[in-house]
Amino acid sequence: MAHLPPVDTFDYIVFGGTGDLTMRKLLPALYYRFRDGQIPDDARIIATARSPLSREEYQGRAKQALHDHVAADALEASTVARFIDLLYYVSLNGAEAQSHWSDLKTLLDMKPDSRIRVYYLATSPALYGQICENLSKQGLITDQSRVVLEKPIGTDLQSANAINDSVGQHFPENHIFRIDHYLGKETVQNLIALRFANPVFERLWTSDAIDYVQITAAETVGVEGRGAYYDKSGALRDMIQNHLLQVLCLVAMDPPVSLDADSVRNEKLKVLHALKPIEPSEVAIYTSRGQYMRGKINGQTVGSYVEDLGEGVTSETETFVALKTEILSWRWGNVPFYLRSGKRMAEKCSEVVIQFKAAPWTIFTNRPAPNRLIIRIQPDEGVMLSVSTKDPTPTDSLTLREADINIEFEKAFNIRYPDSYERLLLDVVRGDPILFIRRDEVEAAWKWIDPILQGWSKNEAPLEPYPAGTWGPEGARNLLAQSGHLWHEDMK
Amino acid sequence: MAHLPPVDTFDYIVFGGTGDLTMRKLLPALYYRFRDGQIPDDARIIATARSPLSREEYQGRAKQALHDHVAADALEASTVARFIDLLYYVSLNGAEAQSHWSDLKTLLDMKPDSRIRVYYLATSPALYGQICENLSKQGLITDQSRVVLEKPIGTDLQSANAINDSVGQHFPENHIFRIDHYLGKETVQNLIALRFANPVFERLWTSDAIDYVQITAAETVGVEGRGAYYDKSGALRDMIQNHLLQVLCLVAMDPPVSLDADSVRNEKLKVLHALKPIEPSEVAIYTSRGQYMRGKINGQTVGSYVEDLGEGVTSETETFVALKTEILSWRWGNVPFYLRSGKRMAEKCSEVVIQFKAAPWTIFTNRPAPNRLIIRIQPDEGVMLSVSTKDPTPTDSLTLREADINIEFEKAFNIRYPDSYERLLLDVVRGDPILFIRRDEVEAAWKWIDPILQGWSKNEAPLEPYPAGTWGPEGARNLLAQSGHLWHEDMK
Repeated sequence: MAHLPPVDTFDYIVFGGTGDLTMRKLLPALYYRFRDGQIPDDARIIATARSPLSREEYQGRAKQALHDHVAADALEASTVARFIDLLYYVSLNGAEAQSHWSDLKTLLDMKPDSRIRVYYLATSPALYGQICENLSKQGLITDQSRVVLEKPIGTDLQSANAINDSVGQHFPENHIFRIDHYLGKETVQNLIALRFANPVFERLWTSDAIDYVQITAAETVGVEGRGAYYDKSGALRDMIQNHLLQVLCLVAMDPPVSLDADSVRNEKLKVLHALKPIEPSEVAIYTSRGQYMRGKINGQTVGSYVEDLGEGVTSETETFVALKTEILSWRWGNVPFYLRSGKRMAEKCSEVVIQFKAAPWTIFTNRPAPNRLIIRIQPDEGVMLSVSTKDPTPTDSLTLREADINIEFEKAFNIRYPDSYERLLLDVVRGDPILFIRRDEVEAAWKWIDPILQGWSKNEAPLEPYPAGTWGPEGARNLLAQSGHLWHEDMK
Repeated sequence: MAHLPPVDTFDYIVFGGTGDLTMRKLLPALYYRFRDGQIPDDARIIATARSPLSREEYQGRAKQALHDHVAADALEASTVARFIDLLYYVSLNGAEAQSHWSDLKTLLDMKPDSRIRVYYLATSPALYGQICENLSKQGLITDQSRVVLEKPIGTDLQSANAINDSVGQHFPENHIFRIDHYLGKETVQNLIALRFANPVFERLWTSDAIDYVQITAAETVGVEGRGAYYDKSGALRDMIQNHLLQVLCLVAMDPPVSLDADSVRNEKLKVLHALKPIEPSEVAIYTSRGQYMRGKINGQTVGSYVEDLGEGVTSETETFVALKTEILSWRWGNVPFYLRSGKRMAEKCSEVVIQFKAAPWTIFTNRPAPNRLIIRIQPDEGVMLSVSTKDPTPTDSLTLREADINIEFEKAFNIRYPDSYERLLLDVVRGDPILFIRRDEVEAAWKWIDPILQGWSKNEAPLEPYPAGTWGPEGARNLLAQSGHLWHEDMK
């Protein structure tokens, strides 16, 4: 248990307060930070949802959520009791102007206007605009108010702009916190530290030394209960447009001049603007999309995507996508960047693989494998550099053998690695947007994604089936094979 | 137990066959390689020494030596018995022309002249010339004969030349194997693999990226029984002139065009020729020398060097030396190379520390420590890269913390690391001199060492006392402090 200086006190108002995200992620994250001393005892967490619950009923649900989602050894009864005391509940339909807004107003008015207010919208994005309008009409948006938007922000550029416009009517851009929980992950943030605090890496971080880059986010789960949402989204919108492009930006950006949020986000934006466009007619060349069939995960037979959706359904939605792109810049000219994400893959694994160029000349009888730097985002967050060393087997000549220079941060530091929401939720209170997505980033990402969606909708690239428990369809492998490259698991 | 293809069969004739080196190192090393299948069953190991022993008596001593110096789980009775069968003994004073040479000749003549013969001189270097002359007079030097010379080859350039001249009258240079057991160490050989099979390292291997280099060979032992020899030698001759300069060559050399022995040795020679000379008048600036006093090693009080030598003795011999030098080349201009070696130091540790330059600019509130690559030669042979990573403690800002990306080869490969003599003894049979010192290297090393010895003999740099169990005298620290540098243990 760390003991950290508390932030300024605040009210955290959560719309969608009875939902899955609140129970699984937000409350546990806030609990951990309360336990670490970062949340003052007079802070308030005000959940709102349509259900007519009493404060005590809500507190009971919250307590259960902590027991389900917080490690048992972090649940001291007295700390839990003090945390539960911070919770309030208002039965309210945020999208309706005629709902019980006065109850919320009364509660908020008990504290001075100068208090920090965070409105966290854990609802359908379709409601963002209406909720903000209602907050505004009720006079609840103070100078110290911020709004947090969960993904997905739109399903294409046009719908994203509509959402951003409607929220932007009531909140200035610097009070809008578009959350991407990938940016809360320790190793994703660590990309900034690894690159810009270590000349040994940054000196190598160009097309001079790097052959290609892979960014993978693979899950073993299927769509679980999220089929209704997922089937309208698909892997490209659900994972690539936000999480993987954000990771790409951190991997590829030029050094910012400071850690000021806009300095960093300007550099990320440069990367998004420099992405080589994939035209609708080119999707067969630069993309691969797939949908999982029946297969085996850890020896257990699992159903196909269509079976997971429910009876009698068919679907053209991709549960896997792989893309090949380039960043048109001096630093990255001619270095392919491969992105992929899928459900029901062989392993749960999010990682960045920096594949270095081969040695220009070898004096060894067996050719050394090119170096590889692997930044593991999850699980087992860490960094691994593969090197060629002398094979210690007593042979005639000096032969090589691959070995990994390795660190697993959690083991090395002997510290619980915080869930990604913990940092992000408190960054909103602190008013630090460095790990949140600026509107122009959202737009640039959609601008790049839209033509791919258009190409797919014209069926320019086939939807390939792949068995659950594999690394996706053959098309993904072909995407790299054209350039003589391999996905990480094929290198082993 | 590895199973390796055997080398061509051979006779190994050891002068000094009852000595410490033979018993502790040569016989155990040959045993391991016999056990691994590399030594044919009809090979012979012929020990010679002055003692009048029977073959059986010698075999008894050898068996005892194996039991003392080979791991118990490697001593299968049948393998030991087969190995002991390879051993012969000839009572012979190699320095005397009138000794029992005919006994040796009879034994060698039992096999054809085309058989490989290795004459291993594990005697005083003063006898090398006479032994070779006698071998020659007796007609024992065949086309397939090689001679192995142990250090020290001379005590300065003149005496080294005298030895090399006298041996060179009877053996061509490419049949003379000057052994430096440091070059048999896995991690020392691994320097070649790490540098020239890994572009990620070699790209950084210049003054652009490297601030300074340290090469340390520290022992915790004192002079033990070797006082008589050591007091005439001292740390500079005993360790720096050979082992540390050899390691320096491997760290600093340009990429050879092949692994051919002369390609590698030509590159090493370039380094030795490019060493910035230390003139006798400059030794106070570029060198530090010390002698150990009483102190504590692992909590045990140990005596001073003079006490170790024996009663009533005084000595001006250095048991510690540290040097600052530079390599006057395009690659290394302005990069200090620090070398040091000592007895009765705080830890047993041989390592190379590559200290990289600091980042040119930092965006973090706490300044990142410069990267450091540590190549551990012994113990725990391995490679460690220190990097700055994100501190996972949930603080306000992105702060840094140092971490080590690490590999220990023995653990990683799960293999017994061979003693350095094993490889070297078999390389002689194979006729591969890549890990042996060519005559011009010996000369270049002495040419650089001689002026330092001259400066010391004029007392231009004081001999500083240091307590046993420390990292040497204050002068060693000052040597680096002038440039704002630190020895590795002071960085921690």
